[in-house]
Amino acid sequence: MPTTGDSVLSRAMRILRTFNGPDAAGAGPEGGPAPSLTASEISRRAGLPVATAHRLVGELVALGALERGPDKRVRVGYRLWEIASRSSPARGLSRAALPYMEDLQAVVREHTQIGVLEGTDVLYLERLSRPEAGRNVAEVAGRLPVHATSTGLVLLAHEPAEFQERVLGGRLHAATPHTVTDPARLRRLLAGIRRDGFVVSPRTMTPESVGLAAPVRDSDNRVVAALSLVVPFETGDPRRYLPVLVAAARGVSRAMGAPVSRENMIRTQGFRPVRDGTE
Amino acid sequence: MPTTGDSVLSRAMRILRTFNGPDAAGAGPEGGPAPSLTASEISRRAGLPVATAHRLVGELVALGALERGPDKRVRVGYRLWEIASRSSPARGLSRAALPYMEDLQAVVREHTQIGVLEGTDVLYLERLSRPEAGRNVAEVAGRLPVHATSTGLVLLAHEPAEFQERVLGGRLHAATPHTVTDPARLRRLLAGIRRDGFVVSPRTMTPESVGLAAPVRDSDNRVVAALSLVVPFETGDPRRYLPVLVAAARGVSRAMGAPVSRENMIRTQGFRPVRDGTE
Repeated sequence: MPTTGDSVLSRAMRILRTFNGPDAAGAGPEGGPAPSLTASEISRRAGLPVATAHRLVGELVALGALERGPDKRVRVGYRLWEIASRSSPARGLSRAALPYMEDLQAVVREHTQIGVLEGTDVLYLERLSRPEAGRNVAEVAGRLPVHATSTGLVLLAHEPAEFQERVLGGRLHAATPHTVTDPARLRRLLAGIRRDGFVVSPRTMTPESVGLAAPVRDSDNRVVAALSLVVPFETGDPRRYLPVLVAAARGVSRAMGAPVSRENMIRTQGFRPVRDGTE
Repeated sequence: MPTTGDSVLSRAMRILRTFNGPDAAGAGPEGGPAPSLTASEISRRAGLPVATAHRLVGELVALGALERGPDKRVRVGYRLWEIASRSSPARGLSRAALPYMEDLQAVVREHTQIGVLEGTDVLYLERLSRPEAGRNVAEVAGRLPVHATSTGLVLLAHEPAEFQERVLGGRLHAATPHTVTDPARLRRLLAGIRRDGFVVSPRTMTPESVGLAAPVRDSDNRVVAALSLVVPFETGDPRRYLPVLVAAARGVSRAMGAPVSRENMIRTQGFRPVRDGTE
């Protein structure tokens, strides 16, 4: 049995990943069917011989990781979602965050989301949005670049310097003309986040919106997630949302067992004005 | 390479499942850390030789399906959650349902949840709850028996008769003295659900609460999920929640692309009174 990068398990993961491909995505923003593929499509996308793909798909269906519909098309099974969701760190965070996110959503009525660092991306765990809310490209189980999003900047600010420098030394794509891509400016931005306990990130991911984010800590007082709001750029000073956002992030941290001491208090006195571009 | 029940993939699934075990569960109702295990614990729980478990855990960590913490303990990785969540049918349903669930939650202020049929259980996909809400044993990515829950009864009512008879012919555990376990009574209950388009299920899962559920349909007009409320038994006639619940379930169905025609109208005129025990 091979134990290299082309082991049975790595091929199975490649098969599962084919369902995440952009053209396999079937779910529109209003919900909809899950992406489904035929065994031949899976074979082509995963770069596996047809016989191998057929056999592995058959095994994954038998194990409940994939499901075959009456139309013979294959999709990701509820059982895989169940295993991954029940035991994932995402679950504890979602449970702790959702009540606070609901209140935030009810009061602010703009996109409310929570994300974690996965590799060098933000991975969004939950998002609450009203249909009439403004533009937001963050999706549940979707990724966005750390340097261009308020969520990502808060997460990056609390990573070890070595990791930060690796990100700052990489290719930093300017999602909009307002995205900060200069490493020196980003370093100042990250220092500001550590000092202030929040970030306001105007138009850095999409020109129409402003992101605001604050850290969520766990029982070891580590920053494990960021809670964020995405509000339209055109509706006045977004800083008015900072008190309620930071209070909610503290609430989630407390629910995660974080020691909420004076020392650990997020320094938000005054919520100083947004400076040019980013704070 | 074995392709029997003891293939590499089936052993990997057994390893992943060890994290779902009751004593591995670390997340309390207020959130908390994800369950974590050592490689030796995994080996014992999965019934695999230590060397095999170590090797497979190593591979799963390398693939991002599992993650190893600084404490050497292993947990389910965000990447597995990401793959399973992005392409799962759970995602389209959650997206379609959450806006309606938020409104339901805001108005009713009681547990609001959506579940699907998985095997012969209800698998809950989403749940919104206020901390002060009454007792509810349904958990996200958790299972409950179909015959004892309002969600399960709605789902069972729309399955083929053959499947229903298989469930009714099995062991039906009485979760409370109010759980309906008599096959003939259950058959009448299921017929009533198909006729009325909803169920009121008083104290059948826990003595303190009443479940109410209505079906969610997809673009093929199939019942793919059930939307439900869990309200305290002691706070008066739960039927007052039926109009808002059924309207929300219709909204979710429409968001899923269901043809909402006159023919497909859920017959809720009158919301007839709850009869003794169950309706």
